[in-house]
Amino acid sequence: MDDIKPWLTLARVPGLHAGHLGRVGDPLTLVTEPPAALASLGFGAAAIAALRRPDPAALARDEAWLAGAGRRLVTWGSADYPLLLAEIPDAPLVLFVEGAADALALPQLAIVGSRNPTSLGCDTARQFAEHLARAGLAITSGLALGIDAAAHRGALAAGGRTIAVTGCGLDTVYPREHVDLAGEIAASGALVSEMPTGTPPLRQHFPRRNRLISGLSLGTLVVEAALQSGSLITARLASEQGREVFAIPGSIHNPMARGCHRLIRQGAKLVETADDIFAELGALLEGLRTATRAEAPDVQADSRPALDKDYEILLDALGFAPAGIDTLVARTGLATDVVASMLLILELDGRVAQQPGGLYCRRLAGKKA
Amino acid sequence: MDDIKPWLTLARVPGLHAGHLGRVGDPLTLVTEPPAALASLGFGAAAIAALRRPDPAALARDEAWLAGAGRRLVTWGSADYPLLLAEIPDAPLVLFVEGAADALALPQLAIVGSRNPTSLGCDTARQFAEHLARAGLAITSGLALGIDAAAHRGALAAGGRTIAVTGCGLDTVYPREHVDLAGEIAASGALVSEMPTGTPPLRQHFPRRNRLISGLSLGTLVVEAALQSGSLITARLASEQGREVFAIPGSIHNPMARGCHRLIRQGAKLVETADDIFAELGALLEGLRTATRAEAPDVQADSRPALDKDYEILLDALGFAPAGIDTLVARTGLATDVVASMLLILELDGRVAQQPGGLYCRRLAGKKA
Repeated sequence: MDDIKPWLTLARVPGLHAGHLGRVGDPLTLVTEPPAALASLGFGAAAIAALRRPDPAALARDEAWLAGAGRRLVTWGSADYPLLLAEIPDAPLVLFVEGAADALALPQLAIVGSRNPTSLGCDTARQFAEHLARAGLAITSGLALGIDAAAHRGALAAGGRTIAVTGCGLDTVYPREHVDLAGEIAASGALVSEMPTGTPPLRQHFPRRNRLISGLSLGTLVVEAALQSGSLITARLASEQGREVFAIPGSIHNPMARGCHRLIRQGAKLVETADDIFAELGALLEGLRTATRAEAPDVQADSRPALDKDYEILLDALGFAPAGIDTLVARTGLATDVVASMLLILELDGRVAQQPGGLYCRRLAGKKA
Repeated sequence: MDDIKPWLTLARVPGLHAGHLGRVGDPLTLVTEPPAALASLGFGAAAIAALRRPDPAALARDEAWLAGAGRRLVTWGSADYPLLLAEIPDAPLVLFVEGAADALALPQLAIVGSRNPTSLGCDTARQFAEHLARAGLAITSGLALGIDAAAHRGALAAGGRTIAVTGCGLDTVYPREHVDLAGEIAASGALVSEMPTGTPPLRQHFPRRNRLISGLSLGTLVVEAALQSGSLITARLASEQGREVFAIPGSIHNPMARGCHRLIRQGAKLVETADDIFAELGALLEGLRTATRAEAPDVQADSRPALDKDYEILLDALGFAPAGIDTLVARTGLATDVVASMLLILELDGRVAQQPGGLYCRRLAGKKA
């Protein structure tokens, strides 16, 4: 554990990230560099003080926390530093992790959104998380109230893995309501923060936290978000990091859909089902998906889109025994050519099939021609 | 009225449109051209027969209809032929018009959608139509059940003008339920068809009708549409005609939003408020809009009195997609009979509506049951 102190020192330099390494290469050299050399590298007085005169009590507190079960430090350049996170320009040099650190190596999808979502928004977040976790994606979010929590819970309910990135030291759980949830997350997935112990959950920490959520993930799905939601920051960061941005539309009368609509206007992929996400992430995930497709129900479980009324009438007239066009004309009162063209459309749509003898019968959901 | 017969003859040539004129120039020459010359122009036997041997009884029926009050024929190349419609490659040579033919010269926005929309979808169509009509746009649609009718009614409620394009001769009103509505439309706006009297409302006429709805209009707004909705045909035609396509997003749990979401994925403008439409139509409409901005309320304004907390909780639980009583009981933790009686009160108060299938959805301000 002796070699951990320099990393803990780096963790406490305000705003320091991998983008500052530049000519330095190995971040640990920063801890031994003379102040004049640090100044010539562009470091200011506060950073130099933090590097050269770390607070021993603070480092001791970090070490004490790290001595707890299931806790560890993941450091820049180490084999278990997450590959996608290493790609972002302002990657953290140190990650405090509690739980199963190997979860960080899984392909991740971020699911984020409002702290005050509608019930339906929560259901949607949970359903997508369940479905995607079952397909092998880890679900990454921010442990916040609302959509974040629903996403974590959905992944847990599916027996999947989920990662919570926080905006404070991991010795604090914020919000307090999520102490139990944090415990469940750590049991199979991981809690992650770049912030050392004793760091409070200040408002200005959350945009920094958000860049890790998007940076760890192949893409970010925003479920519900008001126009001023922090989720839009996460989405912007994902986009700047070259990651996919997904957004779920909603009623124009739902203020929590406004943020998603803005994202869609700006180019985010409009998502109605989990398959829309798979379609974008594509080849990267193909292996995962085929492995689980059989057992994974579609998020919109029930079904095929509703039919227009005439088609419903025709299907009702068809019932569940084979019938010919003349019978259907007699039952519906529609013209023969109308019935014929409607049947063709229903056949193309996989809802009816033609049998030998020109009789039509219904097909069940999911049995396309 | 003597010179009208050649135009009525042209109106009865199956599928004939301005795109066929080519070298001919003046369409009336087609009526006097010898059959061999017509054949050399590419006309088939049916078209030649229709041009050379028109049915006198049919023409007499058209003339009799046109003799009625407020009825007229608008012909290709005449001063009152709508300018935007003349731009489309398959513009009709003849329009039968009932009502105020000058309405066709107004800048128009088409509002179309499902024949089986949600109550909320109807409210939305009506509110957009009201707002846009008040701003000086004529609202053009197809007189169908559902969204079309709501759009026409919204324009009428605003004291604006609205144009209904039909897929049958104007001696028939289809659907029959809209006889009164058609009368109201003709009183200040116009009923329009390229189809002569006696033409029934066959299914295959509607795509042809749809090209006129989009072709008359600066843009087409789709409010709610299933994936197989004819509204998507109108939107595709609008796009092919170089006009704007607008679509209103909805909950992913609302099947009637699927068509709109498909359009948005294909590049349609996502619309949340009437201002989104003005922003696209821009300069063309600036004059109109500033004249009415002061008196035009925002589409999303809601000035109804606040509700008791339990009712707010129930409405929040309902969200913005249809839900059944069981779902609401699960979401709120309230007893079934309590939820049922609260829903009844909210329904009487015009805040929710029951849909076929026992699902409830929210309604907007000012639309009492």
